[in-house]
Amino acid sequence: MSNILVLGAGRSSSALIEYLLEQSAGLNCTVTVADQNPESARQKTGNHPAARPVGIALEDAAAVEQLINEASVVISLLPPTLHYKVALSCLKYGRHLLTASYVNEEIRSLDLQAKEKGILILMENGLDPGIDHLSAMKEIDSMKEKGGVLKSFRSYTGGLVAPESDNNPWHYKFTWNPKNVILAGQGNVKYLENNKFKYIPYQQLFARAEEIEIEGEGIFEGYANRDSLSYLKLYNLNDVSTFIRGTLRKSPYCRGWNSLVQLGMTADSFEVDNPGNLTWSQFADSFLPEIPGKNIEEKFCLALGLAQDAEEFKMIRWTGLFSDEVCPVKKGTPADYLLSLFEKKFVFAQGDKDMIVMQHQMQFEIKKQSENINATLVVKGDEKHSAMAKTVGLPLGITAKLILQNKIKLTGVQIPVMKELYEPLLKELEEKGIRFKN
Amino acid sequence: MSNILVLGAGRSSSALIEYLLEQSAGLNCTVTVADQNPESARQKTGNHPAARPVGIALEDAAAVEQLINEASVVISLLPPTLHYKVALSCLKYGRHLLTASYVNEEIRSLDLQAKEKGILILMENGLDPGIDHLSAMKEIDSMKEKGGVLKSFRSYTGGLVAPESDNNPWHYKFTWNPKNVILAGQGNVKYLENNKFKYIPYQQLFARAEEIEIEGEGIFEGYANRDSLSYLKLYNLNDVSTFIRGTLRKSPYCRGWNSLVQLGMTADSFEVDNPGNLTWSQFADSFLPEIPGKNIEEKFCLALGLAQDAEEFKMIRWTGLFSDEVCPVKKGTPADYLLSLFEKKFVFAQGDKDMIVMQHQMQFEIKKQSENINATLVVKGDEKHSAMAKTVGLPLGITAKLILQNKIKLTGVQIPVMKELYEPLLKELEEKGIRFKN
Repeated sequence: MSNILVLGAGRSSSALIEYLLEQSAGLNCTVTVADQNPESARQKTGNHPAARPVGIALEDAAAVEQLINEASVVISLLPPTLHYKVALSCLKYGRHLLTASYVNEEIRSLDLQAKEKGILILMENGLDPGIDHLSAMKEIDSMKEKGGVLKSFRSYTGGLVAPESDNNPWHYKFTWNPKNVILAGQGNVKYLENNKFKYIPYQQLFARAEEIEIEGEGIFEGYANRDSLSYLKLYNLNDVSTFIRGTLRKSPYCRGWNSLVQLGMTADSFEVDNPGNLTWSQFADSFLPEIPGKNIEEKFCLALGLAQDAEEFKMIRWTGLFSDEVCPVKKGTPADYLLSLFEKKFVFAQGDKDMIVMQHQMQFEIKKQSENINATLVVKGDEKHSAMAKTVGLPLGITAKLILQNKIKLTGVQIPVMKELYEPLLKELEEKGIRFKN
Repeated sequence: MSNILVLGAGRSSSALIEYLLEQSAGLNCTVTVADQNPESARQKTGNHPAARPVGIALEDAAAVEQLINEASVVISLLPPTLHYKVALSCLKYGRHLLTASYVNEEIRSLDLQAKEKGILILMENGLDPGIDHLSAMKEIDSMKEKGGVLKSFRSYTGGLVAPESDNNPWHYKFTWNPKNVILAGQGNVKYLENNKFKYIPYQQLFARAEEIEIEGEGIFEGYANRDSLSYLKLYNLNDVSTFIRGTLRKSPYCRGWNSLVQLGMTADSFEVDNPGNLTWSQFADSFLPEIPGKNIEEKFCLALGLAQDAEEFKMIRWTGLFSDEVCPVKKGTPADYLLSLFEKKFVFAQGDKDMIVMQHQMQFEIKKQSENINATLVVKGDEKHSAMAKTVGLPLGITAKLILQNKIKLTGVQIPVMKELYEPLLKELEEKGIRFKN
């Protein structure tokens, strides 16, 4: 009897674990779910006969190794920094490893050893990265077979709140790591447009977000991700002149966020001086030029050249940034302060539904004609699982099944860009309601 | 016979070396001038009988130590990173050390040892830092004696080009480390204003430059330096509600520079992709949003919301940034590219004169009345020495003389904020034409 090990039973694991337990009888396998919080593992597995929930101390290397040794396939939902150690144990015992995290140089360096051992280390096999690769490569390969060449590729993904749970002026709630949302875009953004390398500094990133209308869903804004260029090689694209990967937010999120970026409030590089009773309006005031006789709201609008009825201004006022409430944070960077401000306002409450939106905008050249293809995915959360849990977890679950069924022969460190993966994965995802519309 | 050692005979050493040689007979001392380039040392010392020019390999620790051992006072004009090693040798042989560089934690940690050895390690004893401390503390102490309390302090210094040599739209030439000028303001800027801590992010720094008119010299712009707050303690200020130290440029320099900052062209954190024949206009284009049918100049103006007759636009066009000339740099950060662009345009040519401008804007409270004092220093370069060489070098030279005359009893790691230093130093600087006007 085989065994699948799921490391980490956090909020995006529910759909994956349910799927694996559903498949367990057919696969004749057990499913071990290990989490630092054993209660979390038990909750996610219910009383399923194939389930083996366990508590585990991640720092107990021997215990983690023992679990890996007992599995045929390991799925790691742990924080990305822990994947390398898990991968080393998988190599040691010859176990396959699947994750939804970005591959890095450290993991990539294990490619040859993984091939020698005959195991697959499949990275970027969740939603974004994951379903974006699967769906893009399917379109690109299918046009290639017909003689088409990809000229332009723009792809945006957002983890958002579903319309029925959207009740704030930012049209956003935290359905994912909140600090990452606060720090989004810090770093160097690079992409390719009209055969030119383009660089966007942080202070321009949100101001330059592109407006994107998605049929039936409204107006969104897309801002570019850090480094799109590494995918040119991974997608085997030689003739593409525009290639951008980005993040989607519901309009006018980026306009509001841009005002905080401009003022430096998202900085994570120094600590705010707080005598202990700093209020939110005092915090805000620290980032504004001193203008005698003006109140905090007036100073804010003057600093950014906004009218007092500007949407950005109303969005910021809604957060409580201009209030006389004392900041709960006493020590931290400006980004830590913003995190605590927004954590109270962007609460994804019990019963709230989330939504995943992904759109590829592709332009091909085929028989000297230009052909545009837009492929759009909209997934909404339901009573049982969030859209995030479904779209991150199911690609991992389906891949684990295919491995146990001996339907995947790949070895080495890979990302899911090959037909061997995207064909069966997209087919089964469609059956689960995760379906692109052209 | 005593001996003064000058380490480094670069472009700001001339006035210092001339001064020390002038004083050598009265002090009954010799002056050793050591530089990696012996020719440089010889040129600066002429055939003066008291001079001992030597070539030295800085990596030859034994040779440097030997020179330090032979001196009574060491003046280091070496790059700041080398001062710590020099200070350790000074401690070893019990020699005094003077520099014009900022004190750091490493140097500060030698305070107790220096006191035990009875030597003075005097840092920040040039222009800025240096003359700014001397002159500010003189005003502050003199008002204190009369019962006045400093409430507000704004101090700006600029190393600029003299009006007679000013022939470009930026009113600026490189009279100091050019890469530092390109990177100026990167980091976190903090100051105190109306009893509030204020933070300025890089993207706001040049846009928020204050306009400052200096009588007889025209309109300048002052932008805040990185960290003003550490001086509150060093100046022994308890009641000040506004404290800002900053850098001066001739207007409209900051407006022009701001446009490059906004577009991300001053970044030093990633390398530009250059196929080998990148032109300046292609370099610029990489930082601009793609707008079909617009040329590079139009894209630039649209990206920044500038009219085509805007002064900023004309300043940038003058640099050659929109030209089809191939960039001489092949590998480097955006900042490296800008450096090579501006190095050709901000040339401080043979015969050009430089100018130092410093202004303290102080507000005191005395007998419940408010009193404003502006102290302004303008120094111009002459046929023999640049203003920079005079203002950086003379405080060091005069201090060395006072030490040999046994007129300074200070020991430990210090910066020149005490009467024992500012009184004789400012007096002699005045005699040399370096004089503040109130």
